[in-house]
Amino acid sequence: MSSTQEQQDRRPDTRERLVRSTQELLWERGYVGTSPKAILERAEVGQGSMYHHFAGKSDLALAAIRRTAEGMRETAEQCLSGPGTAYDRVAAYLQRERRVLRGCPIGRMTQDRDVVKDPELRRPVDEMFRWLQSRITEVLAEGQRRGELAAGLDPAATAAAVAAVVQGGYVLARAADDTAPFDAAVQGLLTLLAAQATPGTTTANDR
Amino acid sequence: MSSTQEQQDRRPDTRERLVRSTQELLWERGYVGTSPKAILERAEVGQGSMYHHFAGKSDLALAAIRRTAEGMRETAEQCLSGPGTAYDRVAAYLQRERRVLRGCPIGRMTQDRDVVKDPELRRPVDEMFRWLQSRITEVLAEGQRRGELAAGLDPAATAAAVAAVVQGGYVLARAADDTAPFDAAVQGLLTLLAAQATPGTTTANDR
Repeated sequence: MSSTQEQQDRRPDTRERLVRSTQELLWERGYVGTSPKAILERAEVGQGSMYHHFAGKSDLALAAIRRTAEGMRETAEQCLSGPGTAYDRVAAYLQRERRVLRGCPIGRMTQDRDVVKDPELRRPVDEMFRWLQSRITEVLAEGQRRGELAAGLDPAATAAAVAAVVQGGYVLARAADDTAPFDAAVQGLLTLLAAQATPGTTTANDR
Repeated sequence: MSSTQEQQDRRPDTRERLVRSTQELLWERGYVGTSPKAILERAEVGQGSMYHHFAGKSDLALAAIRRTAEGMRETAEQCLSGPGTAYDRVAAYLQRERRVLRGCPIGRMTQDRDVVKDPELRRPVDEMFRWLQSRITEVLAEGQRRGELAAGLDPAATAAAVAAVVQGGYVLARAADDTAPFDAAVQGLLTLLAAQATPGTTTANDR
């Protein structure tokens, strides 16, 4: 096999390159700031190929948003289904490694009027956050049943606060051009949550 | 005085109309989505007048962001310097009336690459959130000194969590096209914070 042939085999196909380039551009520039031209350039694809695979920018953005949401869901699930108590699992989600200053590629979409006003484009964003909140709710409710967390804790409201602290932490960090406010917000919430944990059930180094 | 003359007297002057129109457009469409043309149309002002008052879009956006940040600061200060305990004042800030689905006009700016990459445009956004976090920190620390809040509470980290819950609450609400996740996140945080309040010092209807 020639080395050019090998390169072609390793290179993702056209459709895949279009989706990945759109994922990156949406994260960096948002929907309104991403032109079809920029996508074609980054994907190194001609206009004809794009319209062969997708009806247009909106169709391609939908595929990209779905793919990004899928990835976020897998990462969150790994943390939330990990070892330890409910507190430990929520802490693992809050403290997982993030490129904080880049912000959340899915949360970012909610600031794009063209995305939130379009029911089809908004759907994967909505589904991702609904899933996240209901999954954290489950983890917290399970912790209550196991006696790890105070019975008075409201699992659904606490789960919404957990998801909001991450999304708002990104906003504060990007405003400051510094990850410190993100870390502080996470620590603030975890300290409040730790006070709801039954003594002896929380991993010491998280307190 | 003719009625036309009266109308002109009541109408804000050109510079003011430009700033207000830019404030609205930045909130609705963000920086990258706001064209000078759209500003001129909304302000009902000619291109010459705009360049008479401002060097360009970036200069005008700076004036608009500063104005919006000033307004937010005043509103937050009213809540945080209001009556009641530290918990009551933070609750007043979290529960103040907001047009949740429109999102935060200042938080929104952090999603615009052209704003966060420009030190001048980012500055008023950064200053607003720094001020907010330090003001909430003061209120919480004062509550601790007065014996209203547990000594173990970290005022600065908790303040970051409070600011983050509001900003992230907007993200979750816009994703859902429903204010419920915003309200849930605020309630979740307040319930956790109420658990840090010394019994008898927290207003009953907030618990």
